[in-house]
Amino acid sequence: MKLTLREIAFHVGGKVIGDPDIIISGVSEIQSSVPGTITFLGNPKYRKFLTDSQADAVFVSDENHLKGKNGILVPNPQLAMARTLGLFFPESQTEPSIHQSANVDSSATIGENVTIDTGGVVRFGAVIGDGSNIGSNTVVGKNVSLGKNCQIKANVTIYHGTKIGDNAIIHSGTSIGCDGFGFVTHDGFHEKIPQTGQVEIGNDVEIGSNCAIDRATIGITSIGDMTKIDNLVHIAHNVKVGKGCLITAGFAAAGTSEIGDYCTFAGQVGVAPHVKIGPNSVFAAKSGITKSLKGGKVYGGFPAREIKEYNKREALLTEISRMRQKLDQLIQDRKER
Amino acid sequence: MKLTLREIAFHVGGKVIGDPDIIISGVSEIQSSVPGTITFLGNPKYRKFLTDSQADAVFVSDENHLKGKNGILVPNPQLAMARTLGLFFPESQTEPSIHQSANVDSSATIGENVTIDTGGVVRFGAVIGDGSNIGSNTVVGKNVSLGKNCQIKANVTIYHGTKIGDNAIIHSGTSIGCDGFGFVTHDGFHEKIPQTGQVEIGNDVEIGSNCAIDRATIGITSIGDMTKIDNLVHIAHNVKVGKGCLITAGFAAAGTSEIGDYCTFAGQVGVAPHVKIGPNSVFAAKSGITKSLKGGKVYGGFPAREIKEYNKREALLTEISRMRQKLDQLIQDRKER
Amino acid sequence: MKLTLREIAFHVGGKVIGDPDIIISGVSEIQSSVPGTITFLGNPKYRKFLTDSQADAVFVSDENHLKGKNGILVPNPQLAMARTLGLFFPESQTEPSIHQSANVDSSATIGENVTIDTGGVVRFGAVIGDGSNIGSNTVVGKNVSLGKNCQIKANVTIYHGTKIGDNAIIHSGTSIGCDGFGFVTHDGFHEKIPQTGQVEIGNDVEIGSNCAIDRATIGITSIGDMTKIDNLVHIAHNVKVGKGCLITAGFAAAGTSEIGDYCTFAGQVGVAPHVKIGPNSVFAAKSGITKSLKGGKVYGGFPAREIKEYNKREALLTEISRMRQKLDQLIQDRKER
Repeated sequence: MKLTLREIAFHVGGKVIGDPDIIISGVSEIQSSVPGTITFLGNPKYRKFLTDSQADAVFVSDENHLKGKNGILVPNPQLAMARTLGLFFPESQTEPSIHQSANVDSSATIGENVTIDTGGVVRFGAVIGDGSNIGSNTVVGKNVSLGKNCQIKANVTIYHGTKIGDNAIIHSGTSIGCDGFGFVTHDGFHEKIPQTGQVEIGNDVEIGSNCAIDRATIGITSIGDMTKIDNLVHIAHNVKVGKGCLITAGFAAAGTSEIGDYCTFAGQVGVAPHVKIGPNSVFAAKSGITKSLKGGKVYGGFPAREIKEYNKREALLTEISRMRQKLDQLIQDRKER
Repeated sequence: MKLTLREIAFHVGGKVIGDPDIIISGVSEIQSSVPGTITFLGNPKYRKFLTDSQADAVFVSDENHLKGKNGILVPNPQLAMARTLGLFFPESQTEPSIHQSANVDSSATIGENVTIDTGGVVRFGAVIGDGSNIGSNTVVGKNVSLGKNCQIKANVTIYHGTKIGDNAIIHSGTSIGCDGFGFVTHDGFHEKIPQTGQVEIGNDVEIGSNCAIDRATIGITSIGDMTKIDNLVHIAHNVKVGKGCLITAGFAAAGTSEIGDYCTFAGQVGVAPHVKIGPNSVFAAKSGITKSLKGGKVYGGFPAREIKEYNKREALLTEISRMRQKLDQLIQDRKER
Repeated sequence: MKLTLREIAFHVGGKVIGDPDIIISGVSEIQSSVPGTITFLGNPKYRKFLTDSQADAVFVSDENHLKGKNGILVPNPQLAMARTLGLFFPESQTEPSIHQSANVDSSATIGENVTIDTGGVVRFGAVIGDGSNIGSNTVVGKNVSLGKNCQIKANVTIYHGTKIGDNAIIHSGTSIGCDGFGFVTHDGFHEKIPQTGQVEIGNDVEIGSNCAIDRATIGITSIGDMTKIDNLVHIAHNVKVGKGCLITAGFAAAGTSEIGDYCTFAGQVGVAPHVKIGPNSVFAAKSGITKSLKGGKVYGGFPAREIKEYNKREALLTEISRMRQKLDQLIQDRKER
């Protein structure tokens, strides 16, 4: 596909700086930009790459950064890049169809323009919204309800009773609605607590590959609207995740924890059972949240603290050797007197 | 389903306090209890929720906690709750059947009342015990032996030669008997060590979603009876896990480690290769066990220590700034003299 | 299978010490060796097990260690063991075939001697090299290119456009080419950045169970030749992993990180976004690499440091209580004067 700079500017709502008729055939990243493409200057620390950039045009938020290059002025260059990528790589449209090897229960309600791929399974009473896509060998359990325009990739398992809103994207290998980890131990015997609740997932949620989201023991495990979850994430029974959270890979939330809206978690973070995390919290990688937090701040460490306090504690370690020196000097002085 | 308090008390072996004829139609949790249900008072710190509880009855271990409410006196309220849940949510019984799209080798031995769902695969020489259930698109490899009344959910993979006892529950996406991570490096070349052993899993074991349990290089990787494993857990080649362990999400045990009976692991714990952990050990979240431990205690940290010692070390950090103050004062005093 | 010691020595290129005609029928490990087998003495700390060993022969690199036992002298006993295991457990050869329940697009290019097992899917334009094996219910996406002699186990998902070299082994549940975790947040709205790149995997790569390897946003996520990856590993979009790396379970590399050749990672390590790690680096378990490192050393901790420095810092904590004692003594002395 080839587009003029003018066409791209029109699409992203930006203003052309320079020649609007140059031809652009793709998007590249500024540190490895190639001729024929448009790149973008998001993070200012990448400005150094601009001079040697091979790209024919640049999305910028400040015209002065262009220094004579062609470009498009936009308030958010990364967003413009994302939307331009969507122009060059439109989602492939395949004719909706239910493959003959798919196994769809006659009681299921299948919307318009639904695709169910090879080996896909839709069980008793399930509802699949208009425009949704069930990947190969994916299993949609009894009485699952799936909204419109969902993309459930291959080899996903959705257990019975799960409710998922519109526009969900769920990647391969993920398991939703599996049993929570609940046992009562008596006389050395671990007796299983029946996991009788469900999972409810809002609209516009994306979940990566090989995640596991447990059903509630009683009630609901919930994931709020527009929350985005990376790969290999564990969400235990009865957890409530708010709206708009960004949860990166290796995260694990233990049973009945609550996570407020718009929280962000770097990699490999853990949350203890029954902990409540307030909204707009940000957690450094490998944090372990062991106590409830009001939220609205940046936290780090294990146990997780405000990041300033965490950094102070880490710095204290560096202090010790200096203190030891001073102390030994004092003792030496005393002896010499 | 509706039951009287008397019927529930009979089922759990408890004693009705109050009106035995009230009608109960479900179970709810005390902090979010709803009318028409029975709730339970397990952890004493939840007693504060009892006053405002909407539930019509409460399982208690001490009659005095009821304060006029209807209830059932039992030694273990949580256990009574678990069993009552089982009453209200009996396991759904489907007619056992082998789906026409399943692929069962003619040499396999299939017990009575076995279900093999759509796309399920049972290979050469495999044995499936009576009453067991093989989920959709699950693959049971060559010469696998599976006991009675097992529930293998959808999209599970069990590699050749694996032995699993009775009453196993294995959740979606889990892979059992995959190759251990073993290579001999010579002249910059990593040569694969053939992984020729098997996995053996005892009776009454539950394994969550998206776990990976490696076959042994030589011999056996084993999981003892009644051990319960959460989601996203890694068990390497030749690991021996004892009986009755509780292993929560994100756990990883490296090759040839040994874990004694009745050990409990909070989330995201790691065990180094060749380490032996004694029975009845409890590990705090994110612990890293780098050396063998006698067991029988609570441990935490990385490297894992007895939790008391670990807590002392953490407290020392808090000490430093106070010491620095004292030290600077001493130095100041000295100068002034 | 039964082999003489002479035959085994010939196979591994070693020299028989003792009776070349004894019959060996398997391999066992030295700490649990059994009659009729050959064992090996690799790590010198296992020498203590040699005296009581029940094995009929031992691979050794030093003839003196045999003390009268039969054995085979080789430069690398572990390597000899690995190759002897391969003798006793030859890979099972099944007649190559495409199962009738497999779903292979007519446009796909299928090499010679390819097996596609029950429920396997090969989509439009995909290329499967000679001698490769696609497991049951595994999905090979559009335009995927797979080299020769690959073993893709059951329930694997390979997304469109992924390129994989020769001799790959990919275990069950793994997802390759799923979307990177990329969103632009504006006005409280997380807008998905289309993930338009691919994954490229070199020759001789092994990937364990339930891993997730994301496609690039733009460009390529790459895994170099002969890199070996354990279970439950996350590789984010645009990551570059070099050649010959050994990456053990629970590892997570964030977006656009770069890992040099021949790096080794113990369990549960994390790498921050945009970090570069030089070649020949070794990381202790649970390390968190937050800054670029030149490589060639052993590192540990979070943030990851050279292991010597890390150990010093850990030792400082032990110092504190001793310093406190000294300090309190000084203060006491001062008061008394």
